[in-house]
Amino acid sequence: MDYRFADRMDNVRSSAIRDLLKYAEEPGIISFAGGFPAPELFPIEPLRAVFDRVLVDEGRAALQYSSTEGYLPLREKIAARMKRLNIDCNAGNVFMVHGGQQGLDFAGKLFINEGDTIICENPTFLGGIIAFGPYVPKYAGVPMDQDGMIMEELEKVLEANPKAKFIYTIPDFQNPTGVTLSLERRKRMVELANQYDMVIIEDSPYREVRYEGQHLPSIKSFDTKGLVVHIGTFSKILSPGMRLGWIVAEEALIQKFVTLKQSADTQTSTLIQRQVNKYLEMYDIDMHIEEIRKLYKKKKDLMLETIAKEFPEGFTYTNPQGGLFTWVEFPEGMDAAVVLKKAIAEEKVAFVPGAPFFPNGGHANHCRMNYSGVAEAQITEGVKRLGRILKTLRKKESW
Amino acid sequence: MDYRFADRMDNVRSSAIRDLLKYAEEPGIISFAGGFPAPELFPIEPLRAVFDRVLVDEGRAALQYSSTEGYLPLREKIAARMKRLNIDCNAGNVFMVHGGQQGLDFAGKLFINEGDTIICENPTFLGGIIAFGPYVPKYAGVPMDQDGMIMEELEKVLEANPKAKFIYTIPDFQNPTGVTLSLERRKRMVELANQYDMVIIEDSPYREVRYEGQHLPSIKSFDTKGLVVHIGTFSKILSPGMRLGWIVAEEALIQKFVTLKQSADTQTSTLIQRQVNKYLEMYDIDMHIEEIRKLYKKKKDLMLETIAKEFPEGFTYTNPQGGLFTWVEFPEGMDAAVVLKKAIAEEKVAFVPGAPFFPNGGHANHCRMNYSGVAEAQITEGVKRLGRILKTLRKKESW
Repeated sequence: MDYRFADRMDNVRSSAIRDLLKYAEEPGIISFAGGFPAPELFPIEPLRAVFDRVLVDEGRAALQYSSTEGYLPLREKIAARMKRLNIDCNAGNVFMVHGGQQGLDFAGKLFINEGDTIICENPTFLGGIIAFGPYVPKYAGVPMDQDGMIMEELEKVLEANPKAKFIYTIPDFQNPTGVTLSLERRKRMVELANQYDMVIIEDSPYREVRYEGQHLPSIKSFDTKGLVVHIGTFSKILSPGMRLGWIVAEEALIQKFVTLKQSADTQTSTLIQRQVNKYLEMYDIDMHIEEIRKLYKKKKDLMLETIAKEFPEGFTYTNPQGGLFTWVEFPEGMDAAVVLKKAIAEEKVAFVPGAPFFPNGGHANHCRMNYSGVAEAQITEGVKRLGRILKTLRKKESW
Repeated sequence: MDYRFADRMDNVRSSAIRDLLKYAEEPGIISFAGGFPAPELFPIEPLRAVFDRVLVDEGRAALQYSSTEGYLPLREKIAARMKRLNIDCNAGNVFMVHGGQQGLDFAGKLFINEGDTIICENPTFLGGIIAFGPYVPKYAGVPMDQDGMIMEELEKVLEANPKAKFIYTIPDFQNPTGVTLSLERRKRMVELANQYDMVIIEDSPYREVRYEGQHLPSIKSFDTKGLVVHIGTFSKILSPGMRLGWIVAEEALIQKFVTLKQSADTQTSTLIQRQVNKYLEMYDIDMHIEEIRKLYKKKKDLMLETIAKEFPEGFTYTNPQGGLFTWVEFPEGMDAAVVLKKAIAEEKVAFVPGAPFFPNGGHANHCRMNYSGVAEAQITEGVKRLGRILKTLRKKESW
């Protein structure tokens, strides 16, 4: 059947990462390709108590339709947490979504007309590119260094694209690079946004998973004109399988998100919202996050030490202070996608090639490696395997 | 702040129903406005056992990311159920979504270019109009009678709109009218669709909640060219607060839905999918549905009997064989939105005025009344109150 799809579908592509996960599930493969939290830390015993209490105390309400904005006691708790994280807001500024990805979809739906420009880090989160795709934007990528997006470069891009729809940024332990935007640059980004009345989409899923260095105020905390939309999630601090995230924004924007939510899926799961709310009441999530931090630091250190030992010369990689990923730069001309095929076939090890993270292409000599979701013994073994294939390939292909 | 929204937002409106629910929550109000399942039937005790077993048996997997298509054992069970309901399909044709509403959003996103025509029943489900809104379609409404969409009228509309993108239909106990499409017309609709290679979106949330008459095969069961997209949900047979539904379609379409799902929210909640899957393994959902049927029939009969007794002359209403709603036609010229305001203010009773269900406007002399979510004593009392206000208004306004 020749279906007559909407034109936007020409711009919709499958996630290279999720497609890769198929290989990653083959037996014997060690995969650094995912972005999975460590399953060994999921608080299963606490959640047994929580799920039961929800059904006993409020079963009927928990299984019924509820408001599109989200469950008020949960929104209040998130607002209180946001305040602690320097964002001045109340429950009316908090809107519940089915994971941070839905926040990105709504940002695209709310702002992007076909052909509009989006300003983003180069590289940027693949899920952002995928979320915005159906609304058919163009991208103006801003180069980064070890302190995140370079503000002089952003200035140039803004000058060239004053009517761009928003700046999309992942300021904390960016996906894919692991790099964090410095304090000075956060302030400067808001100044520049104010100058152009430019919305900033601050996507911050890893914010609380910092295991080194000093906590930095969010970009939203410097917002004076209601331009910053902050997206948070429980995926990395509790469970990604639940699919629960939130948007913090001006009420005028929240009202728009409400109408988009009604269109998209009516409301976020009442049950999941009440389960998470009850967990926050019965347990100390900060103690849980502390455990995550400790384990991820250990895994990150192990991965970086093993890379230092096992990779040949000419490869550089970032040293993230938090989050889930390190970003490896291969020697110029070495195509990570080609390496991946051989790595899977010959050494049963997988990662994500970097090219899909660059919205306008190029930069094939990069890869993203996840440590959070991989067991420690597998990190050592997987990096060794990867080191072997990289050494062989460098020789053979004279990369 | 003057935000520069996308043009599509001009076409996005809030759900009149969900906005009304705010009033409906005021103390003392009896509301027939919602579309809520009966909370007294939610299987809370079984779910306590189910939720615990999921965490004990498969906690790590249940809290982790999983495939975009959905949880395979659940998709297999749904495929088996669909077969029993005359649809020949396998797990590869079943795709999990966050409620039926998300199926509608994806249908809009997949097919509609701005200005494309959608053919639908007149009136049609408000949630459909809201889902398609962001993709800015036009509507060609097809008149209905007691057997649903009139096929001679559909023929005319197809002839006038051969390039329409799809026929959107709710064949079973339609929302808002409660009317069911007859067997002959189901077959005829597929013949006509085949003639025009026209996709049919078969939205069937109430299908299994039939309490009278004979079960009819779904439109999808007559599909020979892969043109029918069938949307189902657990909202009316288990819990709407969970937000779990499914799409049944050709694999070529499922692949497109997968890419849209990745954009929209990555995947449907792993936890909810595994909870529902475990419920289907541990308990007999058909016995549960049987209870729903019995109670809804009782409530429907009570509502219709009370209307017959309490409403003044000149009002007609449908007698649905299943589902959640009856549809009342007021005398010509009587505006249900005006009645609603007075009904809330003077008698503390609410319903949904019919006009928003007509995509091209008009027909203000209708209202939709829900019985499933209202306790029996409240049905009697609420209909009495509504009868009083209708009698007063008919006299005063000489409607």
